[in-house]
Formats: sequence, structure tokens, C-alpha cells
Amino acid sequence: MRILVTNDDGMAAPGIKALVEVAREFGQVIVVAPDSPQSAQGHAITISDPIRLHQVDIFKGIESYECSGTPVDCVKLAKHVVLKDRQIDLCLSGINHGSNSSINIIYSGTMSAAMEASIEGIPSIGFSLLDYSWDADFGPAKSVARELIKKVIDQGLNGCSLLNVNIPKIPETGIMGMKVCRQAEANWKEEFMEAKDPRGQKYYWLTGEFVASDMEPDTDLWALQNGYVSIVPSGHDLTVHNAIGQNKGLESEV
Amino acid sequence: MRILVTNDDGMAAPGIKALVEVAREFGQVIVVAPDSPQSAQGHAITISDPIRLHQVDIFKGIESYECSGTPVDCVKLAKHVVLKDRQIDLCLSGINHGSNSSINIIYSGTMSAAMEASIEGIPSIGFSLLDYSWDADFGPAKSVARELIKKVIDQGLNGCSLLNVNIPKIPETGIMGMKVCRQAEANWKEEFMEAKDPRGQKYYWLTGEFVASDMEPDTDLWALQNGYVSIVPSGHDLTVHNAIGQNKGLESEV
Repeated sequence: MRILVTNDDGMAAPGIKALVEVAREFGQVIVVAPDSPQSAQGHAITISDPIRLHQVDIFKGIESYECSGTPVDCVKLAKHVVLKDRQIDLCLSGINHGSNSSINIIYSGTMSAAMEASIEGIPSIGFSLLDYSWDADFGPAKSVARELIKKVIDQGLNGCSLLNVNIPKIPETGIMGMKVCRQAEANWKEEFMEAKDPRGQKYYWLTGEFVASDMEPDTDLWALQNGYVSIVPSGHDLTVHNAIGQNKGLESEV
Repeated sequence: MRILVTNDDGMAAPGIKALVEVAREFGQVIVVAPDSPQSAQGHAITISDPIRLHQVDIFKGIESYECSGTPVDCVKLAKHVVLKDRQIDLCLSGINHGSNSSINIIYSGTMSAAMEASIEGIPSIGFSLLDYSWDADFGPAKSVARELIKKVIDQGLNGCSLLNVNIPKIPETGIMGMKVCRQAEANWKEEFMEAKDPRGQKYYWLTGEFVASDMEPDTDLWALQNGYVSIVPSGHDLTVHNAIGQNKGLESEV
């Protein structure tokens, strides 16, 4: 089994080290990850600039490359430049430092990388720990990843090829289990911090507060708040299928 | 009616000029758009750098701002810094130079900007013309936008707050009508162009070929290939709902 590991926090992040340590228990690991932090890059790709790719020796005995592009660029380069005819059997992204539950999947580089692999038909799992700290304890998250990867290899993914997995920030003994659920509705209440540069020009820092508007028991937010690991089977179809019939009045024929 | 206009090709693109010209027929227009091209930025946001915002005088009589950030940053700044207590009734993004049908919505800055507005509860329409040229004829696209905006204002959007509208590159007399459809399945077959810089270091340019794997008559790709404007009611829920039950085997309880 050949496993591609990537992330959005960059090659030096503790989270990817934790994921590589788990992944290597299951087969041959190849790492292609950004050479700098790429959080909140969403599904951005680099089309107007050249992309650099360098082999690096970071994880003992693991073929690894750092890439100047976005997380999605990393996956594209991994498949088409690094691996070419070598098949990828599984893509693992993370472990992200911070939540990618609910609406955060839309902004997440970690999940976009995993989604890009799944668009290419590769079973993919994005892992995120609800702890933004660089010193986060990845021990419980490693146990979760190990258990879930084993299950996915044994059972396969059914009806989807992408899982969005979020892990609560609690000690391993406090984790209640794993729940398969749906993406909760939520949004970010933005506030911009205004400042002035030395030349008196205004600039802004994006900041904001996460607002959960949907805590039903079948959601990822409910699972996480109740001590469960959330697993959301995810895809890339943004169509609101129920709304097709409801908006037929917009149609016209010449 | 107050209308926010944005795009991803930047403030100087002919496509946004065309959209502003149509939008001003329907109400007060405010423009907040990137100060440089931001194609393929997906749902990226700027969290590690400051963002600049400058008022500019580009469109006669229209309050306009250019922003150093991504298309999604533009919408966030528009709502929370530029407009604050002034309500936005409608967000229009585009007119994009090039297709955002099918899987392209995932990578598109144009559609991500519109989606960001819809996440905030603002009815939003992203317009794209299937012509990458800077000299594209936006005449037919303007007629389409005018007709559709009028209908959306009259009828409202039902069951969704975001439309992905793509316009075929054909003369206005050749357009067969408008169809409400679903996002077709497709992917990009990537090829990277390899080159060397003056210091002999390799770098890569992303390039690729669009591969349509789904041309059913209810898809946007079918509509466009058959001379129709495609309208896909879109959202931000990436859950594959059918797959939740199918993957219950991944669950565990402690």
C-alpha cells in the first residue's frame, strides 16, 4: 500500500510528523507538503507563478518533497510529477493544527488537499485536531488516526472517497468514540482589526468569531462538543439538488 | 436595492466593467474587487498578512474599492468594513473570463466570492463567460445577466442563495435559452511543464486538460454544449449525505 501524506501547516509542523508516524505503520509513505504554512488557502492553485519542488530529508527513511505552492498544488505535483506511474492507494492530510469541522472545510487547505486527491479518485482522509497550538498533544489524535486508517483499509469507503475527520481536544481516555455525521451549518462573524503602517496608510487584519447555528445530534459540531471524533463523508458537488426544481422559473427558451 | 459587485480577475478586467454596467440598472452599486488578478484562488482567505483597501475612481459615479486580498477577502471587507450597517441585498461576481462550470467551481475565485456572500445570507450570483480572452465580447453575457438579475429580483431564489451561471461563447442570437441544472462530474488531467531557471534549478508550471466524464442532459456541461446558459443552484455543504449511512461501520463507542 502506497500512502501520500500532505498538509497545509507546512513540512515543519508537528501535525504532519505525527501523521507520518502513523501512516508508515500501514505501508510505503511519500510526503509532498508545502514549504511554508498555507492555512486557509482553500482550493487555491498556482497558475500565474512557477512552482518549486525539492526533495528533503526530514522523516527518517521516508521519500519527502517540499513544494512552494498551495496544498492542492502539492497533491497535483505528487500525482503527476513525483509519483507518475506509481499508484497512490490512500491520501492522508494533516494532522491539522485547528478545527476543520462545519463551514471550516470550505476555507481549509488541509481538506482541499484531501479533496483534490479524492477528485482524482484516490481515497482520502483529512485529519484535524481542535488545538491550534504548535505544542498540541498529538498522542490521542495518533490513536484515532491509527484506528480509523485501519478500518478504512479493511472496509473501504462507501459512496464517497473523502472523509473530514476532526478530533476533540481532550485526553485519550475522555474520547467517547467516533461518529459519522454531516457538516453543521455555521459561519464566521468577521471583525477586522484596523492598523496603520509607518507611512500612515491603513491596513486590516482578518479576525473573527465562529458562530455555530446548527447543533443537531447528526452534525459534526454536536459530535465534537460531546467528546466524539467526527467523521463527515465529503465530496465536491456543490449543487443544491433540491433547489433545481424550485428555481425552474428562472429558465427560458428562445 | 444595494448591490455588491466583485470578481477574481481584478478591478481592471473588462468583465467586471460589463457587470457594473448591468448592475447599476437595478440599484445602488458598490464595488469591492481585487487590485490584481486572483484567478483560481478558490476559497482562500488572508490570515497571515495584512490586507490593504483603497477607494478608487474607476466606474463613473460608483463607490469602488480595490483590495490587496483574495476574492473572499473582498466580500468579507465589503460587508464588515466598507458597508457595515448598510445592508447588501444582492451580490454579483464576475463576469469571469473563462468557465466556472462543473468542477471548476471548486477552484474559482469568482464563485468563492459569491459563495462567501451567500454564507453570510446574501443572495448571490456568479457569472462566467466561456471565453478566456481579455477582448471577449461581453455583449451577449450582459443581456443574459440583465434578464437573470431581473428574474431573481422578481422571483427570489428558492431553497438556495447562490447561483453559478455560465454563458456559452456564442453570438446572442445563437443562445438557446437558460437551463437550471446540476454541476457535472469532471476533472482536470494535469500536466506540468518543467523548466529551469538561470541558476539551473527546476521549476514547474501547472497546465492541464479539462476532462468531462458526465454529459447527462441535466448537467451544466450539457446545457453549455447545447447553446444554453447554465444555472446551477449551489451551496456550501460538502457532505455526501447518502454516504453517512453507508459508512456507519467506521463508528465506534468507548
